[in-house]
Amino acid sequence: MITIEEISRARTRLHGKHVVTPMLEYDRINDSLGGRVLFKPENLQRTGSFKFRGAFNKIASLDDGQRKKGVVTFSSGNHAQGVAAAAKTFGIPATVVMPEDAPILKRENTRRLGADVVLYDRHVGDRKAIAEEIAARTGAILVPPYDDEMVIAGQGTIGLEVVDQLDAINARADVLLCPVGGGGLIAGVSTALKALQPHIEIYCVEPEGFDDTRISLERGERTSNRAGSRSICDAIVTEIPGEITFPINRRNLAGGFAVSDADVVEAVRQLFQIAKLVVEPGGAVGFAALLAGRIDLQGRTAVVVLSGGNVDLEFFKLEIA
Amino acid sequence: MITIEEISRARTRLHGKHVVTPMLEYDRINDSLGGRVLFKPENLQRTGSFKFRGAFNKIASLDDGQRKKGVVTFSSGNHAQGVAAAAKTFGIPATVVMPEDAPILKRENTRRLGADVVLYDRHVGDRKAIAEEIAARTGAILVPPYDDEMVIAGQGTIGLEVVDQLDAINARADVLLCPVGGGGLIAGVSTALKALQPHIEIYCVEPEGFDDTRISLERGERTSNRAGSRSICDAIVTEIPGEITFPINRRNLAGGFAVSDADVVEAVRQLFQIAKLVVEPGGAVGFAALLAGRIDLQGRTAVVVLSGGNVDLEFFKLEIA
Repeated sequence: MITIEEISRARTRLHGKHVVTPMLEYDRINDSLGGRVLFKPENLQRTGSFKFRGAFNKIASLDDGQRKKGVVTFSSGNHAQGVAAAAKTFGIPATVVMPEDAPILKRENTRRLGADVVLYDRHVGDRKAIAEEIAARTGAILVPPYDDEMVIAGQGTIGLEVVDQLDAINARADVLLCPVGGGGLIAGVSTALKALQPHIEIYCVEPEGFDDTRISLERGERTSNRAGSRSICDAIVTEIPGEITFPINRRNLAGGFAVSDADVVEAVRQLFQIAKLVVEPGGAVGFAALLAGRIDLQGRTAVVVLSGGNVDLEFFKLEIA
Repeated sequence: MITIEEISRARTRLHGKHVVTPMLEYDRINDSLGGRVLFKPENLQRTGSFKFRGAFNKIASLDDGQRKKGVVTFSSGNHAQGVAAAAKTFGIPATVVMPEDAPILKRENTRRLGADVVLYDRHVGDRKAIAEEIAARTGAILVPPYDDEMVIAGQGTIGLEVVDQLDAINARADVLLCPVGGGGLIAGVSTALKALQPHIEIYCVEPEGFDDTRISLERGERTSNRAGSRSICDAIVTEIPGEITFPINRRNLAGGFAVSDADVVEAVRQLFQIAKLVVEPGGAVGFAALLAGRIDLQGRTAVVVLSGGNVDLEFFKLEIA
């Protein structure tokens, strides 16, 4: 059971090690939506996504004996970079199991951070099994992408910062929108907010066809995505909600929304042109939900977590006209 | 004579009206340059550039009788948007004289902010004369882009924030690099820093062929650019240093650097891919100077002002391979 106290400990561990990302607001976006949008841009975080927070907290919470054997993980990219950078901070080895078709930028960045990258074929291999085999063989500690209390607590530090930053500008938020893959980010953030600002309605946002958390919340049980879907949101195309994250999210969330690739492209475009931020498709789904009118913002205030910015430049040439 | 007290008054006027832009740092950039680079991203400022600060301070410093007749200015784009947004905040009319070939994004944004845009042909018209004629006819107050003490004081608030933010992370800066067009931004910033952190060496950075401030500093007198140059840095292609700004900059600056279009494209690319920031060419020249090796950063700390982000998406398709 993850608690606000565990998230506070994570904040203490992270102090001076991560970027306290700002809270950003844009007149033109507020004007066009008729309310107030406060962005939490985790694309500006170390390694370009929120993942550094959870990975660092997990590694920091190990004792020296555990830590020195190194860490291993599996990830399509953002968590890989977060783990690699956190391991580098501690001077310990990291091994990352990545799909062969992960974005080149994410693969290169992971290697550049000193991690040993093991590629596998997403359509036949089981990345978790490969990582667990490496852990068993080398003694390395597994740093799961979301189903881990220390990882969730690290991501939850975003919630503490949001509360402080709302307070600093004397604002009261009505809703928070957050991208969801396995659900670790929103599990941490929602735990912090439900403890400190329980009136804020928290919604998960997922790509159409990968809205397993939305559907699972409606059904009250963990449900897999239907097979064969495609999405440009490579960072959050997980198959089923996490075993640890789902019970937390079921307790804390008001519901969920699904957005189309076209919604996401428009969100990425506006974030580029108006907000001057490079946000990856999976990182922009929360804003996409607002642009697509999933919530009426008239006279209300939304916090929108932008979870990452690790997108190849090529994307802007291909996707955005 | 602009003073640190006048800049402090500007900060009081701006309080709650502008974005206190964060100070951002990236491991990968530090690693590749062998030192520490602290970015001050004014692309995240209201209207996408630092210009809002000076325009707001100028308008706020007028008395009600002066202010109600509105304001007029001339600008290729960023100052136009800054003045339009500041005037809108006060509910007064704004007229902006812009070149016909200003980037479409800047022209559209200025109109969207409620300003009356008057276009002129840059190769034959005199924008300052057109603006002065409008001021004389309507009673509107001219808000000059740089040669004005209240405008300079507003831009100088960036210097105060830099000092606070260095203090917050317990960092000591050795140098500051800042884009220069007419010299208002660096005149304000350098006045603040020379009062509070006089050991910091301050350098102006300009595009090759438009390095009039660098040359003027060397010669000790205001010198125009040679005719016929071209640059992708539309925001800072001014012809000659300002009458008010140059004496300030001559007193405060350690020198200047010129960078090529190729240097700037590489800076914009790295800011996109690593920093996750959309920075316009003219806003990225300070970082371009570092990448081009104009200063050896080994073991040192540089503050780099990123002055704006108002670049058409099209630029990324055309310029960056």
